[in-house]
Amino acid sequence: MADKDFTDSLRPELLRRSVLFVPGDSLRKINKATELAADSLILDLEDGVAFNRKAEARRTVVEALGTLDFGRRERLVRLNPFSTLAPVQLEGLPAEDLSVTLEARPAGYVIPKVETPEHIRLVSDYLDRVEAERGWPSNSIRLLAMIETARGVLNIGQIAQASRRLEALVLGAEDLANDLGARRTRAGWEVFYARSAIVTAAAAFGLQAIDMVFVDLNDLPGLEEECRFARQLGFAGKTAIHPRQIEVINRLFAPSPEEIEQAMRLVQAFAAHQAAGAGAFELDGKMVDLPVMRAAESVLAKARAAGLLN
Amino acid sequence: MADKDFTDSLRPELLRRSVLFVPGDSLRKINKATELAADSLILDLEDGVAFNRKAEARRTVVEALGTLDFGRRERLVRLNPFSTLAPVQLEGLPAEDLSVTLEARPAGYVIPKVETPEHIRLVSDYLDRVEAERGWPSNSIRLLAMIETARGVLNIGQIAQASRRLEALVLGAEDLANDLGARRTRAGWEVFYARSAIVTAAAAFGLQAIDMVFVDLNDLPGLEEECRFARQLGFAGKTAIHPRQIEVINRLFAPSPEEIEQAMRLVQAFAAHQAAGAGAFELDGKMVDLPVMRAAESVLAKARAAGLLN
Amino acid sequence: MADKDFTDSLRPELLRRSVLFVPGDSLRKINKATELAADSLILDLEDGVAFNRKAEARRTVVEALGTLDFGRRERLVRLNPFSTLAPVQLEGLPAEDLSVTLEARPAGYVIPKVETPEHIRLVSDYLDRVEAERGWPSNSIRLLAMIETARGVLNIGQIAQASRRLEALVLGAEDLANDLGARRTRAGWEVFYARSAIVTAAAAFGLQAIDMVFVDLNDLPGLEEECRFARQLGFAGKTAIHPRQIEVINRLFAPSPEEIEQAMRLVQAFAAHQAAGAGAFELDGKMVDLPVMRAAESVLAKARAAGLLN
Repeated sequence: MADKDFTDSLRPELLRRSVLFVPGDSLRKINKATELAADSLILDLEDGVAFNRKAEARRTVVEALGTLDFGRRERLVRLNPFSTLAPVQLEGLPAEDLSVTLEARPAGYVIPKVETPEHIRLVSDYLDRVEAERGWPSNSIRLLAMIETARGVLNIGQIAQASRRLEALVLGAEDLANDLGARRTRAGWEVFYARSAIVTAAAAFGLQAIDMVFVDLNDLPGLEEECRFARQLGFAGKTAIHPRQIEVINRLFAPSPEEIEQAMRLVQAFAAHQAAGAGAFELDGKMVDLPVMRAAESVLAKARAAGLLN
Repeated sequence: MADKDFTDSLRPELLRRSVLFVPGDSLRKINKATELAADSLILDLEDGVAFNRKAEARRTVVEALGTLDFGRRERLVRLNPFSTLAPVQLEGLPAEDLSVTLEARPAGYVIPKVETPEHIRLVSDYLDRVEAERGWPSNSIRLLAMIETARGVLNIGQIAQASRRLEALVLGAEDLANDLGARRTRAGWEVFYARSAIVTAAAAFGLQAIDMVFVDLNDLPGLEEECRFARQLGFAGKTAIHPRQIEVINRLFAPSPEEIEQAMRLVQAFAAHQAAGAGAFELDGKMVDLPVMRAAESVLAKARAAGLLN
Repeated sequence: MADKDFTDSLRPELLRRSVLFVPGDSLRKINKATELAADSLILDLEDGVAFNRKAEARRTVVEALGTLDFGRRERLVRLNPFSTLAPVQLEGLPAEDLSVTLEARPAGYVIPKVETPEHIRLVSDYLDRVEAERGWPSNSIRLLAMIETARGVLNIGQIAQASRRLEALVLGAEDLANDLGARRTRAGWEVFYARSAIVTAAAAFGLQAIDMVFVDLNDLPGLEEECRFARQLGFAGKTAIHPRQIEVINRLFAPSPEEIEQAMRLVQAFAAHQAAGAGAFELDGKMVDLPVMRAAESVLAKARAAGLLN
């Protein structure tokens, strides 16, 4: 098991509240996405692109990364999945995706259908070689792993430790439900176990957990409710499949003014009691001790990262 | 870990929507069961038979399997559990159950209280020897594993990979709740974690997950609700303890006409868009991409297996 | 994996319904606690004590254990946590906590923020040496492990097997939620996965599971509801942070008169049917077989331990 302080030091300060999928074969849609408020953009070579357009999508992604201004938006590319044939090898579609798009130097890659740590290590080792050959800073290209099969959920503890490059675990709920033979519902109990396992493994190794897409594009109150629950469980952000979902997601994954104010009150009261020699104390009928105080400090850190606090 | 394509090829096409427990010592009840609509019958040598009637139950099961016409119903026998004394050995009640009933060639055995892969391997190795000695086809006798202790839940990932013979994981909720010190309730949150773990491990290794019994024999609406939730989580079927439960279970674990129609619409629309070079698209305000399409195809496959579609 | 019968034989008969945290630096509060109805008292050296009062708290705990009459209340001491620096070593605050307080011979220690079995083994090995040197009975000092980080949840299966001294797993929900980046709510879905994992691992190795604190000191109906759900999941008791919570907890973690009566009816009816050669039978429209009967016997055992039945 890795040294906790070491992994903590890798914990990305990047905000990834809203992570938008954009079809990799549409320069028009990618261009439009560079003007949206999404924290991260995933230029998709996988499910969002028809099989007969994979090569064109790779060229379009290279052109987009080389010519468009993404501003502060994170530039990610989603690879096609590994073949399910054993032994696992980096060949075929994902290998071509990497070799063609690396020259455009995306910030990182999203690996779909990660089932074992080997899937991540193969990509990471390939990036090691490329970074060394080209003289790029080592470990500069990030990885995000999509968990969207039963095996991925079962192996989540090993997957979360697979590479120093790994920054986030992303739930793919539609594929997962299909693999489980489950029926997707609004309440989502069929993916609750997977969501909990992903948040837990991510936290254990200093990664972010990014929640599933919300497929009903016209139901913004439903999206808001799902964001609120994901936030409650510990997700740092949520994938989006349409521009109109971004505002809701950004708002829900930032701390509320009430949370920020309450956190500031707690931290101040704790400091005063600590200086006076008291440990735990009661505030508004609630016991305040170190864990409660640390949670308050975490709220303030998120608020600062979202520009809501100096 | 096993090769996924390999385990996928083992995925049973057998429908196991309703799996009925029948006391092994009652030829009358077994005879009646052969006329019911249950997909699988478990002739029970374990909890359904008093200790002083185990030998008689074995003889009755042999007679029933040798003389009654089971039609398409799967003929299963539930063994008595392994002793909890270490080291684990195939001896005592379950060893006698096997040696007496094998001559009647059931389709498979249900092993209760499986806690480690060793429990399954010991039975599987025994069947290997018997199949070889008698010239029966190898791996022709199936195994189903009941998960009904905390250890079984904890070791579920290894248990699911224990043998090529293994076709299903079956939740035993009453025993499990007792082992956990939990209190059984209608909503069932005390077994939700176990249900989720079982569905996940089953899907990861190409097995079926079969849900717990519903003990209130007079509450068919309650049974229907529990079936609906099990189906939503990914269970392929449900154990039954009374004939009157079978119709509800069979109905709830088959796709509904609305689901079948919607799945056909999705598959047709997807094919049209794919031919036109588009990947993901919007249908009725929902994003349709490969995962959504695959889920639709899975619904159609189940409908065909249940005779609801050609 | 340990022999089940062996671990079963360690299963503590001790009632630990209510487990009260008391600040270790307040002789007055400890003195008051010795008159309360809590089953166990945790004299806290960790979060309940300010950093500049740790040494004084150790001296106060030694004085309290040496001079006050605790009656039947279990005398536990909570250590400060291990440093998160690798490699894990028993040094610093928890080492001092142990060396100073051992002379007062508490019944056991509560180890906070247990993340790996190593945390427990280091303390257990230290106690082995001290017991040998001083001629105390071996394994006489108990351990309880607090699970309050994502890593603790992820490693729960190994943690539960770490030492013969280990008697209980205790959920620390506030710290856990902070580590997960989760938001604590009344319904508590953000800690449901951890609660389930803790109950399951505890049951698998013959340990007790003790539930999280309820922080709203003025909401006794809320506490009652949370106790009821914890009890349903399989928790044996609950930590408390205020005297007024004890009565509710003790009441909710003991079987109700209705449960005791129903359990007695079931056990009697089962014995009668078993004598008559029947296995499973129907009582009040519910199937009664061995698992159901065993659950009833468990209720009666708890009732006896709580003094509600002879």
